[in-house]
Formats: sequence, C-alpha cells, structure tokens
Amino acid sequence: MTGRHAARHARITFLGTSSGAPTLARGLPSLALRRGPELFLFDCGEGTQLQFRKAGLRPGRLSRVFISHLHGDHVLGLPGFLMSLQLGGRATPLEIHGPPGIAALIQAVLRLVEAHIGYELRLFEHGAAETVARGDGYQIECRPLDHRAFCLGYALVEAPVPGALDVARARALGVPDGPMMGRLKRGESVTLSSGATVEPAQVVAPARRGLRVAYCTDTRPSDEAIALARDADLLIHEATFAHDRAEDAHAKGHCTAREAAEIATRAGARQLALTHISPRYGDPAPLLSEAQAVFPNTVIAADLMALEVTA
Amino acid sequence: MTGRHAARHARITFLGTSSGAPTLARGLPSLALRRGPELFLFDCGEGTQLQFRKAGLRPGRLSRVFISHLHGDHVLGLPGFLMSLQLGGRATPLEIHGPPGIAALIQAVLRLVEAHIGYELRLFEHGAAETVARGDGYQIECRPLDHRAFCLGYALVEAPVPGALDVARARALGVPDGPMMGRLKRGESVTLSSGATVEPAQVVAPARRGLRVAYCTDTRPSDEAIALARDADLLIHEATFAHDRAEDAHAKGHCTAREAAEIATRAGARQLALTHISPRYGDPAPLLSEAQAVFPNTVIAADLMALEVTA
Repeated sequence: MTGRHAARHARITFLGTSSGAPTLARGLPSLALRRGPELFLFDCGEGTQLQFRKAGLRPGRLSRVFISHLHGDHVLGLPGFLMSLQLGGRATPLEIHGPPGIAALIQAVLRLVEAHIGYELRLFEHGAAETVARGDGYQIECRPLDHRAFCLGYALVEAPVPGALDVARARALGVPDGPMMGRLKRGESVTLSSGATVEPAQVVAPARRGLRVAYCTDTRPSDEAIALARDADLLIHEATFAHDRAEDAHAKGHCTAREAAEIATRAGARQLALTHISPRYGDPAPLLSEAQAVFPNTVIAADLMALEVTA
Repeated sequence: MTGRHAARHARITFLGTSSGAPTLARGLPSLALRRGPELFLFDCGEGTQLQFRKAGLRPGRLSRVFISHLHGDHVLGLPGFLMSLQLGGRATPLEIHGPPGIAALIQAVLRLVEAHIGYELRLFEHGAAETVARGDGYQIECRPLDHRAFCLGYALVEAPVPGALDVARARALGVPDGPMMGRLKRGESVTLSSGATVEPAQVVAPARRGLRVAYCTDTRPSDEAIALARDADLLIHEATFAHDRAEDAHAKGHCTAREAAEIATRAGARQLALTHISPRYGDPAPLLSEAQAVFPNTVIAADLMALEVTA
C-alpha cells in the first residue's frame, strides 16, 4: 500500500439503517462509501438498489461490495442489485467480499431465478482477520466480530501521507536539484559537497495520517471492533437496542448504544455513527442520548443521510 | 365451490408495477387482492414487504401467495417477506403457490440465509391449468402463459350467487312454509296440494354472476390469458412496451399495451389495468392511449394505487 494517493476524505451514504425488518423510516442495512473515483457498498439488504438510486449514486463507480454476514436482512438485496447492474449494461468486473458461504449463496440464488450476469463477478470469502482488498492509497481490512452467525467487520485504512518536500528551503540550505532531493523526501539525510548534513526533518513536512473508517455490524461488544476502529475518523457501529435491553441484545448477538459508545471511546475514534436500529425505536433519541453520555461526538444514522469524513 | 358467500367485491392494491428493475416511481411486481376477510398476494418482487406496509395492509390477513414465475424481479422479495412475518410473530399457516421450482427456491434461500420460519409454509407447485385453491365462495385457477420461463396466470373466480327466494310471493301462490320452499330455492318446481305447479322462476330471483379477476404477467399475447380473463370484471395484464416495440417485446416474452387491450376485448373483460411497465416509460401516456384506442376502459397501474372491483 502506498500512501501517495491517500484521499484523506470519504463520503458515507447510509442506504438502510434498520435491523431485521424494514420500517417506513428505515430500510434494511446497507451503506455506500465513496472515496475518490471509487464507490464501495457495505452490506446489501433488500431494497438497497432502490435506495442507491434514490441517493443519486452512480452504479458505474461501484467496484467492491463487502458483506458482513449471511443473515437475510444484510444480503437479500444483493441478487437483485446484481441483476439490475446487468440490465443497466455493466461490463466491468465487480468484487464481492464476504464470509465463507457468500459465493454459494449468490450463485445459488442467481441460478434459481435464472439470472444471467454477463459481467465478471469476483467472489472472495474471508474466514479470519486479513487485508481483503488493496487500492490506490488504501486497503480494506476485515476482522471477525461476535454475532450469532460468522460476521465480519471492515475498515478502510489509508497509509500515512508522506510530508511534502520544501524545495525552496532545501535549495537555501545548499541542496542541489537532483537525487539528493529524492533521498531527503524518502527520509534519508544527505551530506552536501560542503560537508554539511541536511536532515529530512529540516525540509520535509511531517507525514500526515491517512483516513480510517470502520464498519462493525452485527456484533456484541467486541475487541475486534475496537481493533478495526483504532484511531478511526469514523466508526459506524450497530446499536440495535438501548442499554436497558442489554441482556436481550447480547442473547441476539447485538449490542446497545451505550456499548457502541464505549467501543468508540476505547478505540480512540473521532466520531461514532450508530446504525442497525431496532424497529421498536420509532424515536431513536434514547439511543443517541445514552451514547452521547459516553462518547459525545455521536450521530444516529438515518436512511439517505450522508456523512463527509476527513482524516 | 359454493356461491353462497360470493363477496362480489374485491380491492386490488398495486404494490409494484415496474418490470425488470425498480425505478423511483415503480417498484418490482406485486399486488395485493383483498376479498372479504382474506388477503392474497400475487408476485413478490424485491421491496414488496415495504410497499405492503406503506399500503397499510395487514399481514395477519394474508392467507395465500401466488407467484407467476421464478424470474428474480417477481420473487426475490418473498424470502424477506416471509422472514418479516416471522419477526412479526405470525403463527398461522401461509400458502404459497407457484410454478415447479418455487418450493426449492424458497427453501434454498431460507436455508442459505439461516432463516428460521416458525409458522407453517404450505408450498404448492402447479405445472398445468388447474384450480389451485378454494375458499368460501371462490376459487383460484391458474393457466400457463407464454413467457421465456414457465409462467402462470391466475384468476379469482366466484361461483354465481343463487337468487333470493321471495317468500312472501311464494306464500301468496300457496306454497306452504317447509321443504317446498327449499326445493324452489334449489331450482326445482313443486306441485301444491291444490294440484297447481309453481316454477322457481316465479319466486326466485335470477342468479347473479360472481366476481372474476384475472392476473396475467409475464406473457406474450396468449389464448390462455383470454381464457383466464373471460368475462372478467378486471383483467390485470402486463404491458411492458408500446406497440412500436412489439418485436422486442415478443423476443423477451412480453407483449405490448395494444396487445393487452386486444386480449381484454377478445375476453369480454369489463376493465383492464396495465402493469409491468418498462422503466423506459417515465411517462406511460403512450401505453395508455394505444390501449384505450382498442379497449377504452383501461387504466395504467401505479404503485400503491387501489382499485375497487365489483361483479
């Protein structure tokens, strides 16, 4: 991974923010992440293709889909999404990442409904923590969370961006144009013909951290979620229930809004977005207030809400 | 089938009226038919469960689902619909009728997404014209249409309603209270003790025809659709394209708005509703006008539009 093309910016669009069943306000789980020219989809519940269209997103930009787990509310919009891409004339390959079984699921459903997909589907199954995809200045990592089904959390991670070389300042110190400039930029000190030494710190700005966004749903409170969200600019985390239902949440493989805020705190994240809200919360204010009591910079996701994230 | 409880009335709610892919205006195919206390669903494209909810329909009334064919746009909303019924606490059985393969499709998808359905699913596959379901005063018939995949059209058919016995008039003619009244009602003539004969037509009103509603999509122009729509109060028929695209329509197993109107005319239907509209028609006015030129009592279905139908 090179950090040279770290975008240090992404736009998240929540496409569905409910859990289990859709409501009039919240569709089934999905979100789009736009970074530079690329668009990624995380989860694809029923109705995602329509929300994608409502959000004005461009199917041609979509290069990679990441599925957390195989429960129906997170994946049953995928076959129809793939079919509509086909109807729309897609010719470029599409990567789909998910837990073991995702390939069999997609292939079986497409076969059963006699769908023809003419573009290339690149299916990847991940059974443990690993780097699942690499691109220009970023990588996507996954870790297993703690749900009833095997479930992956994901993080988009940009490498640090090397600081810019201050050429004028280097020249003023006597550095000649040419290879010495490149060595300084790469972090090496150089000895001038005068015998003087120039250190990189004298002429190169400090490296800037890259963007980091983590997506963790569905899960009980999990150290793996903390690892994914370590120093993240944005942690998107499930908050299926309020904390007075913690026992029920854990029994069902979920966590509470307060627990999501504790994860964000322990990870040192900068912002928390709660999603995967149980249909029982027509008004999610109780979830927001209990999370903000722990981690103030929390928002509750809403369908078609967009968040701009900057490193 | 008894006609004694013919409702002679139904309410159709169109839940999705697009073909292939959803648009911002039209969802994937599905419609609900309410008759008396029962609710039926015809087709169940992705997004149906949300449209069902938007329409204010009551899941507890839903007793029977009829699937036309196994193409994804007509059936991929069904697994999620079944899962949400489970989350809603359904305990009563649900019938699902469809072409051969519908059972394998549903069972495979539910298994792949690890869904638990606690209520009884009664799966019925139909490979030829037959009566697929019977109820109080009605039956549902199916016939194979002419699509690329094996596809069933359906008709809700009520038996004729026997005319009422005019008891006062029968008494005035000398008919005594008792068994003779029942014989007249059943259509038999009776001979009084006076030797006079009373014919049923003298005291029993003419039978009234029951309701008939036909649902035909997807299909090329088909004699089987005409048979289903014979004397129907409402024919719901696909009209994927306008007639200037007839060749394309037939190649894809579809028909045009004009052809749908010709089917309605030849069947002697009383009203025609066009549905399964290609996303290319942002404005469906051309479809409506070419159909009305042939069959004036035509409407174009819209999502969440309701039609009251009376025999």
